[in-house]
Amino acid sequence: MGGKVSPLAPKNFPALPPLAGVRIATAEAGIRYKGRTDVLLMLFDAGTAVAGVFTKSKCPSAPVDWCRAALPRGKARALVVNSGNANAFTGKKGRAAATLTAELAAKAAGCAGHEVFLASTGVIGEPLDAEKFRGVLGNLAQSASGDGWENAARAIMTTDTFPKGATTTLDLDGVRVTVSGIAKGAGMIAPDMATMLSFVATDAPVAAPVLQEILGATVETTFNCVTVDGDTSTSDTLLAFATGAAGGKPITDHADARVAPLRAAFERVLTDLAQQVARDGEGAEKFVTVRVERADSDTSARKIALSIANSPLVKTAIAGEDANWGRVVMAVGKAGEPADRDKLAIYFGGIRVAHEGERDPAYDEAKASAYMKNREIELKVDLGLGGGTARVWTCDLTAEYIAINADYRS
Amino acid sequence: MGGKVSPLAPKNFPALPPLAGVRIATAEAGIRYKGRTDVLLMLFDAGTAVAGVFTKSKCPSAPVDWCRAALPRGKARALVVNSGNANAFTGKKGRAAATLTAELAAKAAGCAGHEVFLASTGVIGEPLDAEKFRGVLGNLAQSASGDGWENAARAIMTTDTFPKGATTTLDLDGVRVTVSGIAKGAGMIAPDMATMLSFVATDAPVAAPVLQEILGATVETTFNCVTVDGDTSTSDTLLAFATGAAGGKPITDHADARVAPLRAAFERVLTDLAQQVARDGEGAEKFVTVRVERADSDTSARKIALSIANSPLVKTAIAGEDANWGRVVMAVGKAGEPADRDKLAIYFGGIRVAHEGERDPAYDEAKASAYMKNREIELKVDLGLGGGTARVWTCDLTAEYIAINADYRS
Repeated sequence: MGGKVSPLAPKNFPALPPLAGVRIATAEAGIRYKGRTDVLLMLFDAGTAVAGVFTKSKCPSAPVDWCRAALPRGKARALVVNSGNANAFTGKKGRAAATLTAELAAKAAGCAGHEVFLASTGVIGEPLDAEKFRGVLGNLAQSASGDGWENAARAIMTTDTFPKGATTTLDLDGVRVTVSGIAKGAGMIAPDMATMLSFVATDAPVAAPVLQEILGATVETTFNCVTVDGDTSTSDTLLAFATGAAGGKPITDHADARVAPLRAAFERVLTDLAQQVARDGEGAEKFVTVRVERADSDTSARKIALSIANSPLVKTAIAGEDANWGRVVMAVGKAGEPADRDKLAIYFGGIRVAHEGERDPAYDEAKASAYMKNREIELKVDLGLGGGTARVWTCDLTAEYIAINADYRS
Repeated sequence: MGGKVSPLAPKNFPALPPLAGVRIATAEAGIRYKGRTDVLLMLFDAGTAVAGVFTKSKCPSAPVDWCRAALPRGKARALVVNSGNANAFTGKKGRAAATLTAELAAKAAGCAGHEVFLASTGVIGEPLDAEKFRGVLGNLAQSASGDGWENAARAIMTTDTFPKGATTTLDLDGVRVTVSGIAKGAGMIAPDMATMLSFVATDAPVAAPVLQEILGATVETTFNCVTVDGDTSTSDTLLAFATGAAGGKPITDHADARVAPLRAAFERVLTDLAQQVARDGEGAEKFVTVRVERADSDTSARKIALSIANSPLVKTAIAGEDANWGRVVMAVGKAGEPADRDKLAIYFGGIRVAHEGERDPAYDEAKASAYMKNREIELKVDLGLGGGTARVWTCDLTAEYIAINADYRS
C-alpha cells in the first residue's frame, strides 16, 4: 500500500458508466487505514436479484456466513464492504458485528436485513468495530449516485497496487444491457488481507436462479483459473446483482436464448477481473498463462495446470527468466494425473523446449532465454494423451512476495 | 553450493562406524561439478536384501524406473549414485545411460545387473554421459572400504549445505546390530537438483519382504512428514540394504519379535535424516514442527498439517517472526478437512494465541513475538473434534529460497 504499482497493471482504470438501478458511495470509516476510503455502500433498486459464490474454506468469515444465509431469498437492496478488517475468526463478536452492520445498512437503505449483503477484507482475527458504520451508512445512502465504480474499486483495496474494474455491453433482443464489475485481490489468496472479493452488476432482467447458474458456470473458467500462491482465503466472495432496470422480459428459464450471450458477457468481465488479480499478484513481475492440452480429461488438465501454476520452483524459475522445463516436468509428475513422459511436449511461447520425453533436438537456449525476458509468459504442456484442455493464469514468485508477506502484519 | 551452511545444521557429521557387509568409495567423475566428488559406489556382501520406496511422480527418472524393475528380486550387491545430473526426462538416452551404468557397476562388483541399484540427482533433462563411469567404477570397487559414510554423504549433495548422516545401534536377541543412513535434499523437493535421496543399511539379518514392510511403515512417519516447498521430485529414492553380516537367524516373518525394535531403530535414523532435510531447506532460517491434534482422523490431521506446512503465507510469516495465527486459520480452512472454527485453538510454542474461534483473551503479543525469534518453532493446532493427530516438519520461506531457485540453472 502506497508502494509502487504492479508493472503488469493496465494503464488506466476502465470507464465504467453508471448502471441503471445501482447507486454507489464510499467513505472513510477509520476501520484501520488512515487517509483513505475503507467502506463501500452499493444500493440496488427494488426487484434486484442476487447470486453468489463463496470460499470453500472450512473456516469462513462472518460476512461469508451472513451472505450464505441471505442468498436463498435471492433479493438484494444493499451491499456493504469494508477493507482493513476481515471479520474472520472473530467468533460470536464477529457474528454480532455482521448482524449490526446489516441492521445499520437495512435502516439506511430502507430494506430488510436479509436484503443486505456483506463482505469484509483485511486482517484476520481482530474484532471488527461495526459501531464505526453507525453514522456513516446513513450519510452514504443519502449521497450514493450512479458514478462511483472507480471509487468503489479503490475503497475495497488492501495490498492491491491498483483498483480493478471491467465492463462490457451487449444487445439482448434489442435491449442494450451492461455488465460491470470490480474486484480486489493480490494473492489467491493473501488471507491476512483476506482477500479475493468481486462484485458484478447488470441491468439485465435476470431471475436469481438463472443468475446463479450463469455465475457458477462462469467462475469455473475465470476466477477459479487464477492462482497466485495457492492459498485460499476465509473470505473469498463473488456476488452478482441483476437490477433488471434495462427493461425486457424477465429471464426466468435457463433455456432462454438470452442466457448464452449474457453468460458470455459475464465471462468477458470476470476474465478481465481475474487476469487483473494475477497481474497484481504480490511481488509479480510477470503475468503467466499456463495451458495444458491433450490431457486425459478437462479435469485432469486443470489439475496439472494448477500444479504447474502453484509450483514455487516453476514460479521462481520464471522470475529468474529461466526456461526451466525440468521443473515443469516435475510439476506435471507431481499432479498425480495420467501422464506419459515419452509423449510429453513443453513449450515456452512458441518455442518447443521438450519433446517425446527429452530436450527438443532443435532447442535453442538463446532463443528461449530471450523469450523469458517478456512481461507476459505463456507456458504450454501437450500431454499427447486425450482431448482434455485447461488454461490458468498466475504470476511469477519473487523476493518481493516474501518481503510483503514476511513483514505485513508488523 | 560453496555458500554458507544452514544455521539449522547439526554441529558435526555424526560418527558412522563401518557397517559389516558394506564397503564404500567415492570419486570425481566430472559429471557437472569441478573439484568435488560426484559419484558414490556402495558394495554389499552376497546375500544382502534390499527394499525401496520411490517418488509418486508420474514422470520418474530413468534410475527410478531401473530400481523399480530390479526391486522385486530383492537382492543387492552394488549401489551407484551420481550428483550433478538427475537423468530425468532424458528419454531413450536416459534408459541407455542407466543400463550402461548398471552394466559397468555389475562388472566392477562381479554381480548381475539386477543386483545393481541406481540413483541420480541434479539437473533434469540433460543427457547423462555414463561413459564417464567406465574407468571410475572399477577403481572404486578396488578401493572401497568400510570407512566412508561421510564421504558418501558428501558425494551425493547438490544444493545441500551440509552432509546428512544418522546411525543407531540396538540389541536383537543378543546380537548387536547397527542401522546407518545418509540423505541428500534441500527442498522437498527442489527437482532441478532432483532431489531427496536416502540410503540406509543395516547388518541385521532381514529378508527383503520384511525389510520392505519396515521401510514402508517407517517412511510414512519420517520422510513423508517433511516438506520444504511441496514440490515433488522425479527422483525421490529411499533404499534400504540388509547385509545380515551381524549374524543371527534370518528375520523372514513380520510377526518375528525382532521386527518391532528394528522398525523403531529405522524410525530413529529416518527421523533424524528427515529433520536434517528440513533443516537444510533452501534458504531456511527456522526449523518448524507442525502438530495437529484432536482432528477427525489421523489422515485428516496429516492433510491439515501439510496444508499449514506448505502454505507460503504461513512460512513467510514465520520467516518474519510474526505469530500470524490468522494465516494458520486460513491454512486449516483450505485443507478441506473437518474443522469447526468455534472449537479451534492455535498455539505457538506453549503460547495459546487463539481459542474457541477468536483471539485468546490472554494473548500477549510481546510474549508471542519473543517466542517467534527462536530458531526452532513449534506450531500446534487443536481442532477439538476427535482423536486424529499428525506431526510434520518444515522450515520457513525466505527471500534466499527465491534467490537460490530463481538463479539456479543459469
